[in-house]
Amino acid sequence: MPNKIMSINAGSSSLKFQLFEMPEEKLLVKGLFERLGGNDEAIFGYSTDSAKESTQLSISSHKEAVDFLLKFLIDKNILETLEELKGVGHRVAHGGEEFPKSCVIGIQEEQGIDKLCQLAPLHNPVNLVGIRAFKKALPDTPQVAVFDTSFHQTMPAKNYVYPIPYTYYEEEGIRKYGFHGTSHQFVAQEATKELGEKLTDLKIVSCHLGNGASICAIKNGQSFDTSMGFTPLAGLMMGTRCGDIDPSILTYLMKNKKMDADALEAMMNQQSGFLGVSGASNDSRDILKRASEGDTQSQLALDIFTNRVKTTIGAYAAEMGGIDVLIFTAGIGENAEKVREMCCSELDFLGIKLDAERNKSGDLFIQQDGKPVYVMVIPTNEELKIAQDTFELAK
Amino acid sequence: MPNKIMSINAGSSSLKFQLFEMPEEKLLVKGLFERLGGNDEAIFGYSTDSAKESTQLSISSHKEAVDFLLKFLIDKNILETLEELKGVGHRVAHGGEEFPKSCVIGIQEEQGIDKLCQLAPLHNPVNLVGIRAFKKALPDTPQVAVFDTSFHQTMPAKNYVYPIPYTYYEEEGIRKYGFHGTSHQFVAQEATKELGEKLTDLKIVSCHLGNGASICAIKNGQSFDTSMGFTPLAGLMMGTRCGDIDPSILTYLMKNKKMDADALEAMMNQQSGFLGVSGASNDSRDILKRASEGDTQSQLALDIFTNRVKTTIGAYAAEMGGIDVLIFTAGIGENAEKVREMCCSELDFLGIKLDAERNKSGDLFIQQDGKPVYVMVIPTNEELKIAQDTFELAK
Repeated sequence: MPNKIMSINAGSSSLKFQLFEMPEEKLLVKGLFERLGGNDEAIFGYSTDSAKESTQLSISSHKEAVDFLLKFLIDKNILETLEELKGVGHRVAHGGEEFPKSCVIGIQEEQGIDKLCQLAPLHNPVNLVGIRAFKKALPDTPQVAVFDTSFHQTMPAKNYVYPIPYTYYEEEGIRKYGFHGTSHQFVAQEATKELGEKLTDLKIVSCHLGNGASICAIKNGQSFDTSMGFTPLAGLMMGTRCGDIDPSILTYLMKNKKMDADALEAMMNQQSGFLGVSGASNDSRDILKRASEGDTQSQLALDIFTNRVKTTIGAYAAEMGGIDVLIFTAGIGENAEKVREMCCSELDFLGIKLDAERNKSGDLFIQQDGKPVYVMVIPTNEELKIAQDTFELAK
Repeated sequence: MPNKIMSINAGSSSLKFQLFEMPEEKLLVKGLFERLGGNDEAIFGYSTDSAKESTQLSISSHKEAVDFLLKFLIDKNILETLEELKGVGHRVAHGGEEFPKSCVIGIQEEQGIDKLCQLAPLHNPVNLVGIRAFKKALPDTPQVAVFDTSFHQTMPAKNYVYPIPYTYYEEEGIRKYGFHGTSHQFVAQEATKELGEKLTDLKIVSCHLGNGASICAIKNGQSFDTSMGFTPLAGLMMGTRCGDIDPSILTYLMKNKKMDADALEAMMNQQSGFLGVSGASNDSRDILKRASEGDTQSQLALDIFTNRVKTTIGAYAAEMGGIDVLIFTAGIGENAEKVREMCCSELDFLGIKLDAERNKSGDLFIQQDGKPVYVMVIPTNEELKIAQDTFELAK
């Protein structure tokens, strides 16, 4: 009897799903609801091995989307009965210090996720909407939460405590949490499988470079440090996010430009990064194209982005006492050979040297033969990792 | 006929001076006025080879301190006439993009320094007070400005442009300026003299670790990157400053704790760093002592501090494509063997390995024999560097 596991990633106006047959990890169907909760009709798209479709739907809530989805799975004979669903795994943005691991969502866990809404006001509430919609539709099926933060709960205090008054940590929970944990953990596991090594024997730097971007230092199989922080703004430059900047810039703008918290957040989260420097686009593909055509602002944006990746690789190698494996993943990491090339240039002294041809073709291994550091391109698959954790916990 | 050059470092309530005979670089007298401009009497202290004294004075302004100082130099026969003073060099905090080098202060330069007060509201105004006091007392003697920022004006745009909307750079001058430039340049020059190498042939990482702290990557003899930023808050953790933190922490505190710009600045500048984490002291000596006695918060503060130095060393090695020389300077860098040991631990993969005995005794070279990276302890001397520049320009 097949075990089917659903992975759910709920956004403010969207709901992504993937259905796997486990433990074979066979993807049966994946899809996306968009424009939920707005005035327009929602859009529903899905694809299987044999079909791909997109339609407009008169539904308006995540709850209705879940009901539609479950009916759709039966109607299309993807499931015979809903009992075949052995578990539903939900991506949850913030697990704070309360959730160092994925967990089955009982009443207490639901309250815990709710309480963490103050630390992730844009994400945890919609994650909860997805969880509650599935709980209502499938009250007897285990719902599992997989947190973006969990993997990073192994960081030592010196890497998660900010050097501000300690009471802000004790009383407000202000510390580095880190995000993209599911992705970093997944690609690190994949890398070690490919290498035939034990995860605990390797010093890994994992670069998740997408529209959001973060880097993770993985030592003894655990997250040792990561570039995102208290929020997903920190660290690297991103599509529209600035990452780390001199914090005094904020107080300067408060005083000299009368900017308030909302204006500062909008500036740092939506108007910065590739978009802010280039003035043209938040999309790395546009930036790469423009830079290659001689646009100096796009070139500058690319230079800043890749330099931050490079310095973070150096920083994490330093704090781990070396580096054995460097991984590139996510949209930019998997597809932008030029970015990988720039991030790794002049790192020969660290044992990092790309093979130009392998990098161009995006091989699994892209380092030159004989170089001590493995450089790998590994497609991330957070949905599969969610399904893996859910399958384990729903057994 | 001897050339005498005065170095001046004016603070909000203080005025430090050193008088050199050039080009011999012989220090004739140094001293300090404290508590200027307050209700209490000022304190004046000085030392020469043969004398050391401290007295209270009924003077209240920087202007009066300058007049007193010049009379004192004659009275004590340190100068025969004021004409022996060939130039007065002034430390100026902020030179913006207008001052990539030290310069003789004419009317235009004075206006330029004045204009930059908005970028350094706590420092440039008092620097100007010192300049004007000396100009008035010695109208025919060249006054020279030596800027904390000048050395860093060689940084490439990718290292000084923040990935926020580019208009903030163009219209507000918000960029990385860097500070401690005089110190980084001085110790780099001293290192190359000792090594008998050309400055332009070396990749140097200079760690200025005092109550304020910054690191500089020096490539081709020029500042390539540095850890302080738009203001001296950024980068490393310091005595009472937090350095880089997730900028979203500020907007979080604005919204959740109703903190305004002044409260945030006070928190980040005066209540953070060693003081904030330890809850005990801003002084690294206290922190080291407490940590050695088992105080966990002091140990954590020390761990965060040294880890930031270490990761910055790794980051700068990465962006320079290697490292030849690592320099420790300033109060902590020159004196705290334990800090140097912690900052360099596990960096063997970079070619950095300390000799325990040499590190303990604070030798000029503290690396193990045969290791490829020179690790040096070099006392900084910003006053001498100011005198050198002033002597050159006043010729």
